[in-house]
Amino acid sequence: MQMEFSIPALDDALAEEIKQKIRQKTKPPGSLGMLEQLALQAALIQGTLAPSLEHPQMLVFASDHGAAAAGVSAYPQEVTWQMVANFLAGGAAINVFARRFGLGLTVVDAGVAHDFGAVAGLTGAKLAHGTASFIDGPAMSRRQCESAIAQGRAIAHRLAASGCRVVGLGEMGIGNTASASLLTHCLVEAPLDEVIGRGTGLDDVGFARKRALLERALARGGRPREALDAITEYGGFEIAMLAGAMLGAAERRLLILIDGFIVTAALLAAHAIAPAVLDYCVFSHCSAEAGHARQLAHLGASPLLQLGLRLGEGTGAALAFPLLQAAVDFLNDMASFQQAGVSGRA
Amino acid sequence: MQMEFSIPALDDALAEEIKQKIRQKTKPPGSLGMLEQLALQAALIQGTLAPSLEHPQMLVFASDHGAAAAGVSAYPQEVTWQMVANFLAGGAAINVFARRFGLGLTVVDAGVAHDFGAVAGLTGAKLAHGTASFIDGPAMSRRQCESAIAQGRAIAHRLAASGCRVVGLGEMGIGNTASASLLTHCLVEAPLDEVIGRGTGLDDVGFARKRALLERALARGGRPREALDAITEYGGFEIAMLAGAMLGAAERRLLILIDGFIVTAALLAAHAIAPAVLDYCVFSHCSAEAGHARQLAHLGASPLLQLGLRLGEGTGAALAFPLLQAAVDFLNDMASFQQAGVSGRA
Repeated sequence: MQMEFSIPALDDALAEEIKQKIRQKTKPPGSLGMLEQLALQAALIQGTLAPSLEHPQMLVFASDHGAAAAGVSAYPQEVTWQMVANFLAGGAAINVFARRFGLGLTVVDAGVAHDFGAVAGLTGAKLAHGTASFIDGPAMSRRQCESAIAQGRAIAHRLAASGCRVVGLGEMGIGNTASASLLTHCLVEAPLDEVIGRGTGLDDVGFARKRALLERALARGGRPREALDAITEYGGFEIAMLAGAMLGAAERRLLILIDGFIVTAALLAAHAIAPAVLDYCVFSHCSAEAGHARQLAHLGASPLLQLGLRLGEGTGAALAFPLLQAAVDFLNDMASFQQAGVSGRA
Repeated sequence: MQMEFSIPALDDALAEEIKQKIRQKTKPPGSLGMLEQLALQAALIQGTLAPSLEHPQMLVFASDHGAAAAGVSAYPQEVTWQMVANFLAGGAAINVFARRFGLGLTVVDAGVAHDFGAVAGLTGAKLAHGTASFIDGPAMSRRQCESAIAQGRAIAHRLAASGCRVVGLGEMGIGNTASASLLTHCLVEAPLDEVIGRGTGLDDVGFARKRALLERALARGGRPREALDAITEYGGFEIAMLAGAMLGAAERRLLILIDGFIVTAALLAAHAIAPAVLDYCVFSHCSAEAGHARQLAHLGASPLLQLGLRLGEGTGAALAFPLLQAAVDFLNDMASFQQAGVSGRA
């Protein structure tokens, strides 16, 4: 790909000053556990001792998958557009959580197989009415893949320009755990069986069918190790756009809340393109979808939450946001031993 | 003890109706993981399909421990009152988290070894200027223990009368992990070594000293298996008051957010007195303090968060509150498949 990403390196020189500020807070050293790491990361990303989480946004990319027609999901393909409509009407889980935690919600049509017409609140970036089925040929063209990444990047840049400092990423696309499994198999040294799962809830018969279809796809398309080759082969548009959004967000020093299995598959691609993107990622949770733990291990990631979630939409990212707020708040607002007149260790 | 607690049984007849409501939400069944259990629990406790979390409150009990003078903590005893002053001034971690998540904060002086005088925002319930040292004799009298439980209960009843539906419990007391370890050793079938830890951060020398002191205490006071005997022997006032508050909160059908090692030690006592209290408890997190995981296993509890916290003050309970909000919100506010016009499984 001709595209170049310039992701700023974190200023490690600031790390000692931030740690010193954390040590002076009125609490035993280290007693806020993972929140202390999170506070350090937020401060390093923003290059300040007083990070802020202004204009937090959820960014949810929706798209369809040609392979869905072959039966890789427990739900029919039409659920993708119906759920997008549900997002726009405010009735889905991600709406409920975003409202509760004060997160804005941007829904992007990356390639849903449905004409929404002019509808308020939907960001149009449709590449096609769904990908082609990866069982019979490549899911998309190389040009579509690059266009998706460029559009995701541009959307992240626009968010940053609007004042947003933290973005939570989510997705909707019936069949997209199948694409994510294939991408993970390609980009991580993991056998297919370690990275396929039941998605929205396949039964044993459905799971066996999904597995057989993915084997067929791999027999056809092989195991490309390069990120864009893998996405071109196995999809999907929302995953490519997520990867672009991550890269664009990191270019603008945004904190990125990574959700579950599909979003992390996109991160595997983004990471392969520009490893420094990882410095900007907060791992929200470990999903119940088989394969997510394997992805996280590959990335050396320690997720904040383990709640057995497997819903997608960015719900895990939204649920982790209050922990990020708490981390930034304690760094900014807690009194020091000196300020509070509290004695130190005996 | 003459005190009787009448904790209402949960109405299991409602369980199927609640589960049905959850199944109709626009998401794959079970995909919200532990939040679905939490929503069910909240609805059962309140006996309604639409639970509410009105007037959420943190309730933090502070007290001193005679054994602190012998060196069971990394911090001097005066830190207890200094941290209470920090709570009242708004500078501690619990203040920061409570403000962020919209939780009220009530601080109770259960027996701090300091005269605060008339100070705004502090609930006075002082039983003494700290307990006696359990190394030389019982930490408190039986009468003090019963009074502490009664006062904790009354405070919970007052909270309920003010409209509060959910209470997060916390504590402050230099030396109180030592008491909590002894109580856990008494009330759980666990060797002392499985339930003692480094508290606020003892080094190896300090830890060895703490361990030796607890052995001495046990050689003197034995291993009482009855809850009030154990508290009378080993303290502390804040732990007894916490146990009373839990029992009183359950009597009034409040949701109870359990914090870490010390609060769970109080729950071991409350549970021994009235096992039904457990139905009302949400386990916020698993602390990094050695012994908390053992307590949770004894109670069959699955904590929401594993963040390596070991701060106390109720901070883990406050951090878990947004997850409880999310659970109640999805039950109340998410659209059903029918409402949203979303297709079911293929």
